[in-house]
Amino acid sequence: MKRYNVAVVGATGLVGREVLNVLAERQFPVGKLTPLASEDSVGMIVEFKDEPHVVQRVSDETFEGIDFAIFAAGNRASARYAPVAAKAGATVIDNSSYFRMDPQVPLIIPEINGQQVFEHKGIIANPNCSTVQLVMVLYPLQREFGVRRAVVSTYQSVSGTGKRAFDELAEQSVALLSLKEAKVEVYPYRIGFNLLPQIGQIDEDGYSEEERKLKLETAKILGTDDILISPTCVRVPVFNCHSQAVHFELKSAATPRQVADVLSHFAGVAVIDGYLGVEPTKEEDGSKAPFYPLPSECSDRDEVFVGRIRQDDTVENGISLWSVMDNLRKGAALNAVQIAEMLL
Amino acid sequence: MKRYNVAVVGATGLVGREVLNVLAERQFPVGKLTPLASEDSVGMIVEFKDEPHVVQRVSDETFEGIDFAIFAAGNRASARYAPVAAKAGATVIDNSSYFRMDPQVPLIIPEINGQQVFEHKGIIANPNCSTVQLVMVLYPLQREFGVRRAVVSTYQSVSGTGKRAFDELAEQSVALLSLKEAKVEVYPYRIGFNLLPQIGQIDEDGYSEEERKLKLETAKILGTDDILISPTCVRVPVFNCHSQAVHFELKSAATPRQVADVLSHFAGVAVIDGYLGVEPTKEEDGSKAPFYPLPSECSDRDEVFVGRIRQDDTVENGISLWSVMDNLRKGAALNAVQIAEMLL
Repeated sequence: MKRYNVAVVGATGLVGREVLNVLAERQFPVGKLTPLASEDSVGMIVEFKDEPHVVQRVSDETFEGIDFAIFAAGNRASARYAPVAAKAGATVIDNSSYFRMDPQVPLIIPEINGQQVFEHKGIIANPNCSTVQLVMVLYPLQREFGVRRAVVSTYQSVSGTGKRAFDELAEQSVALLSLKEAKVEVYPYRIGFNLLPQIGQIDEDGYSEEERKLKLETAKILGTDDILISPTCVRVPVFNCHSQAVHFELKSAATPRQVADVLSHFAGVAVIDGYLGVEPTKEEDGSKAPFYPLPSECSDRDEVFVGRIRQDDTVENGISLWSVMDNLRKGAALNAVQIAEMLL
Repeated sequence: MKRYNVAVVGATGLVGREVLNVLAERQFPVGKLTPLASEDSVGMIVEFKDEPHVVQRVSDETFEGIDFAIFAAGNRASARYAPVAAKAGATVIDNSSYFRMDPQVPLIIPEINGQQVFEHKGIIANPNCSTVQLVMVLYPLQREFGVRRAVVSTYQSVSGTGKRAFDELAEQSVALLSLKEAKVEVYPYRIGFNLLPQIGQIDEDGYSEEERKLKLETAKILGTDDILISPTCVRVPVFNCHSQAVHFELKSAATPRQVADVLSHFAGVAVIDGYLGVEPTKEEDGSKAPFYPLPSECSDRDEVFVGRIRQDDTVENGISLWSVMDNLRKGAALNAVQIAEMLL
């Protein structure tokens, strides 16, 4: 069996480590693994299949002989090194937002527009986590019923920002529970026991970067501007897993049960809706599963979980629902590895 | 100056204590103060104007000579004792949901339908906190532009549930940060570093009690079924202050600046929108105020704070915004005391 040399740029970050986990779990045919990072992390050890690997400094020379370069180190690293990696012959799968709207770069969710992956010119972009979560639900509904509009409010965990934000939530929580002052470093304001109604820079039109991504990336992935997206993106004091309250206006009528049926037959989506009588996922320890998706239950899970599916009678063909997804996994690392798998 | 004897039922709870604070702060002309509670809290001491008061057991006899009885002890206590208090000649202001939809009982937000308070037959109902927060913003927009529909996603703090939930969030957070198991007692699932997409019982139509309240109470307060409300109510790991992402469809066009102008001139609403150039509230210590409302900044504040006002071009006359309110205050205690003030 052919094996492929894989470089992971940003291998010590939350997404980078998850990429290593997912590559191992899915038995991706890795030949040589090259974990790369910026100066600060050089010499650190990451584990892959229980073997230690020393992190190397990313440079213009590190991509020789690499088949797949998975980038998870932010916009600056991708802008600088993704073209270098592509030129050296690697296929780049990029988690940053830098190339996502580039017309030369396919923006891929394998279950949805996977066939476009083969049009790549060296770089393939992974969508933003919130986009993946929304579109994984929106697309099967679009195919079956048509979607006119979606009003989306997000409840996004700190792991989406990275390890420093993860630590900051923990540290601020400890400080506040000890009645001490919480130091604010990563976000503009405190996240511990608080909410931040801003993710990324807010533009003149009043929308944040995360909200713009939801609109623009959805249109690019689905190849249409016709589906209207009205977003509010909010950071919440949850360590991992993003949640979304979505209020859909479909083009044709659908009952909650039909929606549950369509979604549960779509690969990568799972319905947990005790109220609709959709069998909740069985827990391994035999305990009763929740009646709706919860962030506390979805870490390390591959699916986008959907529940609380209900009719919205305030609009024609209205359907509202609640979804939860491990943003490090299907929202980043898993989707990237799935893209690589398509190219094998 | 005439003074009034005031009983507070549930005086040891989060809302009850806040009622005492608000009565004192606003120099409500209290004659005798009678703090009441159920068996469990009898003998406890509560402070009012720096004086200790011993909590007495609520009974059929405790309302003799009381002018105002403010109930903040849940549905069962209100169902049992509010009629007793009214019969004894007290004017009841009830924070529970028990009488809210009773056509004989006015449901009052003083700034909005205050004049209806005089139609009371002994009992006046205080709306649910989420309803107050939504309607305080919706009403001035309705008056100025007309409101066709509002899609509302809530981010509700645990103080709305009461002191046990407040403690449970703290205890679960400490446990999880110490890598111990979090005990779950108050809510159906863990709230620490988690989200619960359910507030109150979920009905056959898939909507939770809190979501139904938002629809029904809004219609009663505004005296019309014409304003469509599509809600998702979610509990978040925040100690105090509720937040809402609201996506309005107005009847006539409005710019974000016009909306900010209308809202900031409505008593009880304050706009904090650095992006619209609306002067953020000045902090007492001279530090820069946030560019949008945050739960961490709104405790002990009377206003409903609104920010992130922006055009929603996915629908005719769409306006989206973010609001934060101290749910114990304008969402409960303050509104109740304001009702009493109208009757002086």
